[in-house]
Amino acid sequence: MSNMKEGPGTIEWRRREANGSSETLTPESGPIRRACLRACSFVNKAWELGADDPRKVVHCLKVGVALTIVSLFYYMRPLYDGVGGTSMWAIMTVVVIFEYTVGATICKCLNRATGTFLAGFLAVGVHWIASQSGERFGPIIVGVSVFILASAATFSRFIPVIKARFDYGAMIFILTFSLVSVSGYRVEKLFDMAYQRLSTIVIGVCICIIITTLVCPIWAGEELHRLIVRNMDKLANSLDCCVGQFFNDSEGTNHIDKEVEKKLGGYKCVLNSKAAEDSMAGFARWEPAHGCFTFNHPWKQYLKIGASMRGCAYCIEALSTCLISENQAPEFTKKHLSDLCSRVSATASSVIRELAINIETMRKSTKLDFLIGEMNTAVEELQNELKSLPALVIALQEPKPEPKDPENNQGEPILTTTPIPLVEVIPLATFASLLFEIGARVETIVDAVEELETMAEFKPAADDKPEQNQLNDATLPDQRRDEETLKVLDKV
Amino acid sequence: MSNMKEGPGTIEWRRREANGSSETLTPESGPIRRACLRACSFVNKAWELGADDPRKVVHCLKVGVALTIVSLFYYMRPLYDGVGGTSMWAIMTVVVIFEYTVGATICKCLNRATGTFLAGFLAVGVHWIASQSGERFGPIIVGVSVFILASAATFSRFIPVIKARFDYGAMIFILTFSLVSVSGYRVEKLFDMAYQRLSTIVIGVCICIIITTLVCPIWAGEELHRLIVRNMDKLANSLDCCVGQFFNDSEGTNHIDKEVEKKLGGYKCVLNSKAAEDSMAGFARWEPAHGCFTFNHPWKQYLKIGASMRGCAYCIEALSTCLISENQAPEFTKKHLSDLCSRVSATASSVIRELAINIETMRKSTKLDFLIGEMNTAVEELQNELKSLPALVIALQEPKPEPKDPENNQGEPILTTTPIPLVEVIPLATFASLLFEIGARVETIVDAVEELETMAEFKPAADDKPEQNQLNDATLPDQRRDEETLKVLDKV
Repeated sequence: MSNMKEGPGTIEWRRREANGSSETLTPESGPIRRACLRACSFVNKAWELGADDPRKVVHCLKVGVALTIVSLFYYMRPLYDGVGGTSMWAIMTVVVIFEYTVGATICKCLNRATGTFLAGFLAVGVHWIASQSGERFGPIIVGVSVFILASAATFSRFIPVIKARFDYGAMIFILTFSLVSVSGYRVEKLFDMAYQRLSTIVIGVCICIIITTLVCPIWAGEELHRLIVRNMDKLANSLDCCVGQFFNDSEGTNHIDKEVEKKLGGYKCVLNSKAAEDSMAGFARWEPAHGCFTFNHPWKQYLKIGASMRGCAYCIEALSTCLISENQAPEFTKKHLSDLCSRVSATASSVIRELAINIETMRKSTKLDFLIGEMNTAVEELQNELKSLPALVIALQEPKPEPKDPENNQGEPILTTTPIPLVEVIPLATFASLLFEIGARVETIVDAVEELETMAEFKPAADDKPEQNQLNDATLPDQRRDEETLKVLDKV
Repeated sequence: MSNMKEGPGTIEWRRREANGSSETLTPESGPIRRACLRACSFVNKAWELGADDPRKVVHCLKVGVALTIVSLFYYMRPLYDGVGGTSMWAIMTVVVIFEYTVGATICKCLNRATGTFLAGFLAVGVHWIASQSGERFGPIIVGVSVFILASAATFSRFIPVIKARFDYGAMIFILTFSLVSVSGYRVEKLFDMAYQRLSTIVIGVCICIIITTLVCPIWAGEELHRLIVRNMDKLANSLDCCVGQFFNDSEGTNHIDKEVEKKLGGYKCVLNSKAAEDSMAGFARWEPAHGCFTFNHPWKQYLKIGASMRGCAYCIEALSTCLISENQAPEFTKKHLSDLCSRVSATASSVIRELAINIETMRKSTKLDFLIGEMNTAVEELQNELKSLPALVIALQEPKPEPKDPENNQGEPILTTTPIPLVEVIPLATFASLLFEIGARVETIVDAVEELETMAEFKPAADDKPEQNQLNDATLPDQRRDEETLKVLDKV
C-alpha cells in the first residue's frame, strides 16, 4: 500500500510493506509525476470527504438508484408504449430535482409542479386567444405574451421573498410557458402533449420523493438543528480557549499547538454559517413532521439563535486579537485578574453548553437559571475586582501601602515593591470589558433559546436536581490557577 | 394620489389633493382590504427594487428579447424545417443559461458545453459496447453505467473545487449521459439526434452570449470591483459615525436620527457580503477583458481585500457596542480624549476612503503614505494621552494637584474639584484600545490593496503633489471640537 506525505515544500512517497516497515520511493521528476501526485491528492481528498460524512456517499447511490429506476420506463416495452417519447421528462425531472436534503427536494418538486401548472394554464389560454385571432395576429400575440411574461417572471426572481422560496418555480414557469405557447403554434395535440409531459413528470417526482424520504432520509431541519448545537459547542470551546490562552501566555508558553488553534478558531465557523443556516431554514419549512420535529416547528427561531451566536462570536473575535496584540498586559496584572476572568469564561461557556444540551435534547433545563446566576455573579465579581485594581495600584504608588478594601482582595498579598504604571492595566481592562460584553451577549442567546423553548414546547428535563458536577469540573482548573497565582505573588 | 403610512401597529391611507392638502381615508376592515394593502406594498417594493437598480429591469427585457428571438426559430417555416422538433432545446438553453452577469452566463455556457460533450462522447461509447453485447447484456451494461456515472458525478458535486466551478456542468453531464445512453437503446439515429440537439444548443448559447455581452452588459468583475469600493466607503462612514456618536452622547443628544443610524450600520453590509464576493469572483474569472480589466485581472485579491475589511468591521462592531453599553465613561473623561479619538477615526477613515479612490480609479495614490503617517501619528498621540490620563487622575486624587507633565496635557486646564474614580476610565480605555486595533487592521487593508496595485499594475496618479485639502477638511471638525472641549473644560 502506498501513501503520500507532504511536508513544507517536500513530497515523499512511501510504500508500506506487509510487515509494517516502510520504504521511501525515489521521486521521478517531470510533469507526469506531478500530474499523478495531483490526481492522488484529489482522490485522497475525495475519499476523506466520503469517509468524513458517509451520508454523502449514500445520497449519490440514491441518485444512481432513482435514475436507474426511471430508465426502466424506457427499457420496458409496455411502459414505453404508455408514456412514449416524452419519458425523457422523467429522467430530466429526477436529475434536476433530486437534492441532498428532503426539504430541498420537496421545495423543488412543489416549485416545479406549481410553475408547470400555472404556466401551462396561461399558455393554453394564450394559445386559444391566438388561434381565434387568425394567422396574421396569432404569432404576434404569442410573441408579445412570451416577451411580457418572461420579462415579468425574470424580474420577480429579483424580489427577495420570491428569490428565497420560488426562484426555481419562476424559471420553470418561463420555460414551460415558452415551450407550450410556442410549440402550441405547430403541434395541434396540445392537451395530449401536456398530459404526456405531466404524467412523466409526476412519475419522476414520485420516485424522487419516495427515495429521498424513505431511504436514509437527510432532513434539512435536522441538519439545521445539529448545526446550531455544533456551533454552540464550538463557540464555548473557542471562548474557553481564548481566555485560557491569554493567561497561559503569562506562563511563558507562547507556543499554541494545533489542537488548541483549531478550538480557538471555532468562532469562525459560527461567523461563516449564516448562508447555510438561511438555506436550511428555507428548506426545512417544506418538510413533513419527522423525528422530534412537527410540521410547524419554528425553524425561523433557529436563525435568530444563529444571529445572537454571531453577535457573541464577533466579541470573541475582538477578544482573540488581545492574544496577538502588541500591548500585552504585564504579567502581574494578568495574574491579578486571571482567576476571575477564567471563571467568567468558564461560567459563560457552561451556559452556552447547557443551551446546546437543551436544544439537542429538546428539553428545558432546570440548571440553566443556576448557571446564568453563576455567570452573572462571576461578572459582578470581576467588575468589583477591576474597581479595586486602581486602589491597589495607587496604594502601590504611595510609600507605605495600606490595603483600603481588604475584603475585595480576597486575602491576596499586596505587592509593596514594584510600582505599576497604570497604563499597562489598559489591555487587561479591555479584555475584561469584552468579557462583560460577552456575558451580555450570552444572555441574548439565552433569550433566543428560551423563545424557541416556548414556541416548540420543550418538555422539562427528567431530573429536577441541579447537577453541580459539571460546574465543579469547570472551576477546578481555576482553583488550581488560584493556588499558582498565590505562589507567584509570594515570589514577587 | 394615494399613499400609505404605517406607524407601529396602525396603517393609515391618505389621499393627497391637487392643492397639497391630504385627506385620511376611512379604513375598511376585512380580509379584502388587508389583501389589497399587501398587494400594494408588494408592488411598491417591486417598483422600488426596479427604480433602485434599473439594470435589473434591463436584464429582464434582455431575457424577454432573447426568448422572443429563439421563438422565431419555431415560427419561421424555413428554420423550422432546418432544426426540427428539437428547437425546444434552444428555448431551454436560453431560459436556463441566461444569467444576470456576463461571467455567470459564460460560466454556465462553458459548463453546459463541456458537460454535454463529455457525456455525449461517453454515452456513445457505452451505447456502442452495449450494442455489441447482444440484446441480453446490452440493457444491463447501459443500466450499470448510468448508475455508476450518475453516482460518481453526483459525488463530485460535493468536492469544493468542483462545486465552486463545475456544479452545473456535473448536472448537465448526468442529464445528457442518461438521456443519450438510454434513448440510444430505442432511437437508432443517435448521431442525427446528437447533431440536432447540439446545433440548437449552439444557437441558444450564441444568442445568449451576444445579447448578454453587447446589450448593456453587466460584468461580474465590475460588480465586484464596485462592491468593494462601496463597502470601503460604508466602512469609513460607519467608523466616523460610531466615534462621532460616542462623543456626541456626552453633549446630551441621545437621539440617533435615521440617517446616522443607517451610516452607523454600514459595517453590517461588509460583514454580510462574503457570499456575494465569492460568487462574483468565481464568475469574473470567465469574463473577457472589459473596461479597465484584463482577462487575467487578479480577482482573487479582491477576496483578500474583502476579508481584511471584514476584520476591520468586526472591530467596528465591538466599537459600536460601546455606544449602548451600560458602563458609559463619565463626561469629563470622554471630553479629555474626544479630540484625539476623533482624529484617529478621521485619519483611519480617510485612509480607507483613499484606498477606495485608488481602487475605483485604478491608480496608485501618492497621498496614501502621508495619510497612513497621519493615522499612525494620531494613534501614537492617543496612546500617549492615554498614558497621561492616570497621572492626571492621580493628581486629582491628591489634595493639592500638581500637573506632572504639562506638555502632554497640551495646555488644557486641569480639574481640581471633582475626583474621578479610576474605574470609570475603563470604558473609554476599551474604546481607545479598539481604535488602536482598528488602526492596525486598516493597515492590513492597505497591504491587501497594495498587493492588488502591484498585481494589476495600477498606474501612478496623474498629479504628484499630495493634496492636503481633503485631510484639512477631515480635521476641521476636530479643531472645532477642540475649541468646544476647551470651552466646556473652562466651565467645569
